[in-house]
Amino acid sequence: MKILFSAKPDVWDDYEAPLRRALDAAGLRYDLSRDHAPGDVDYIVFAPNGPVKDFTPYVNTRLVMGLWAGVETVVGNETLTQPLARMVDDGLTRGMVEWVVGHVMRHHLGLDAHIHGQDGEWRNDVYPPLAQDRPVTVLGLGELGSACGQALAGLGFPVTGWSRSPKRIDGLTCLSGADGLRDALTDAQIVVLLLPQTPATEDILNADTLALLAPGAVIVNPGRGPLIDDDALLAALDSGAVGAATLDVFRTEPLPRDHPYWAHPRVTVTPHIASTTRPETAAQVIAANIARGERGEPFLHLVDRTAGY
Amino acid sequence: MKILFSAKPDVWDDYEAPLRRALDAAGLRYDLSRDHAPGDVDYIVFAPNGPVKDFTPYVNTRLVMGLWAGVETVVGNETLTQPLARMVDDGLTRGMVEWVVGHVMRHHLGLDAHIHGQDGEWRNDVYPPLAQDRPVTVLGLGELGSACGQALAGLGFPVTGWSRSPKRIDGLTCLSGADGLRDALTDAQIVVLLLPQTPATEDILNADTLALLAPGAVIVNPGRGPLIDDDALLAALDSGAVGAATLDVFRTEPLPRDHPYWAHPRVTVTPHIASTTRPETAAQVIAANIARGERGEPFLHLVDRTAGY
Repeated sequence: MKILFSAKPDVWDDYEAPLRRALDAAGLRYDLSRDHAPGDVDYIVFAPNGPVKDFTPYVNTRLVMGLWAGVETVVGNETLTQPLARMVDDGLTRGMVEWVVGHVMRHHLGLDAHIHGQDGEWRNDVYPPLAQDRPVTVLGLGELGSACGQALAGLGFPVTGWSRSPKRIDGLTCLSGADGLRDALTDAQIVVLLLPQTPATEDILNADTLALLAPGAVIVNPGRGPLIDDDALLAALDSGAVGAATLDVFRTEPLPRDHPYWAHPRVTVTPHIASTTRPETAAQVIAANIARGERGEPFLHLVDRTAGY
Repeated sequence: MKILFSAKPDVWDDYEAPLRRALDAAGLRYDLSRDHAPGDVDYIVFAPNGPVKDFTPYVNTRLVMGLWAGVETVVGNETLTQPLARMVDDGLTRGMVEWVVGHVMRHHLGLDAHIHGQDGEWRNDVYPPLAQDRPVTVLGLGELGSACGQALAGLGFPVTGWSRSPKRIDGLTCLSGADGLRDALTDAQIVVLLLPQTPATEDILNADTLALLAPGAVIVNPGRGPLIDDDALLAALDSGAVGAATLDVFRTEPLPRDHPYWAHPRVTVTPHIASTTRPETAAQVIAANIARGERGEPFLHLVDRTAGY
């Protein structure tokens, strides 16, 4: 059984050993390489910026497994007719929860005042509200959004989650659809964006929807850059209608040096580090999916090509 | 039944209405005032910096109820022979958990690099370890330490808790005693101090115990200032043995303007704001304890005068 690894060379360096360990542990017999004759390949491990762009010659490939959680740069590839699995990595989910909790708590507690304000003045007259009085809305209730919403609810925040189709998640108030989106955003004090990037989610935060938020609301975007209408957000930040934004993802990455986000006093830029697939845990996910295929079981984490995620 | 409220005038302004609501809701008949003849007083609601310093004339007082969680400034008062209850306030506990989680996540994620570093450089080559690879130790397993330890464990940190006497708390590795303290601190990457201030806990973090921590460890102290030998901590910060400290409490408060903590690049000072008793929730605790007394039931949250907390 032949596995093709198609990603940049430094990714291979990170993944080869963990993948071999995980495949061995799963009891699989395999030939893992970055160079197989296309017609011989059974499985492809794949990063969108790797060498394989045309899937047409991979006529015997049973599954293409992405290394990334987002597949927006893959689903439009018309040569990719093989089944496609997203990466659903426990390490990626945990990292995302940690990043979201950290940035939400930073804004909730007003940490910056103390990080920046070491001037000898003892200002102990202001307490933040308790989390229970700070409504948070999470847009997107996939693996990442659900996990982040539940972690925030566990810390006491009243969390509203929104998704395209109806969901039920313990501890969250779940809304869906267009009316649900307006309800979810109305009076929200902190909004976390963890939607997939699709034509339906582009610019979901725009002048109209930003106007629904509580005055001085905080935007936290570790999802995808195009979820936000940048001009509308900058206008809302300039007016103070939005109090702060922590942005990890952008329409153009790296974010150009002259982009107004870098210098805006209400914006924190983080360089697409909110979370990443971790080789040790991701390798186990890949090996488990291949083992399912070899046993004739249905694959996990298959992408719905119509929905785009 | 007469209740004396002995605290500064601004505290009375914050508490009077919530207290009356809570006492009414408990179905109590009472006379709440800041001015009763001492011999008539049944219950005292008390802040250490309020007017009552000599409890001798309060010969009929059944319970003195502190408004603060720490009682180190009260237990040494030899005129106070009446039963003494600490404040155990759910609002205070929640606020403390939020502050501790926020500051721990800030250090764990290295947030400052992004808060300070908005210079247009896209530095995405470093990921923090996952919480599961970052051992945290909490010294003190009372209401606050237990709650903070459990919240951090819930976010994935391996949490070791230490207390004077043995305890068992779900989700934490609990150690106790002198040997346990050394084990708890050895290789800890983040240490949270939530011990009571007693002769036995003074300077518990000193040159000897600081040397046990992992290189570059982080100290978070929302407990009490004297838990730390300040000179030893400053030396460890200067050498880099301790990587950072976030300190909310100090031997002298407000922290004097010329104290080296203010200007130290590895220290964040917060002005004793980690958490505070919240009038709405604290009033309910006070009313509940008075109601127990009126029904002849044992009081809650009594201080062990020998142990000092």
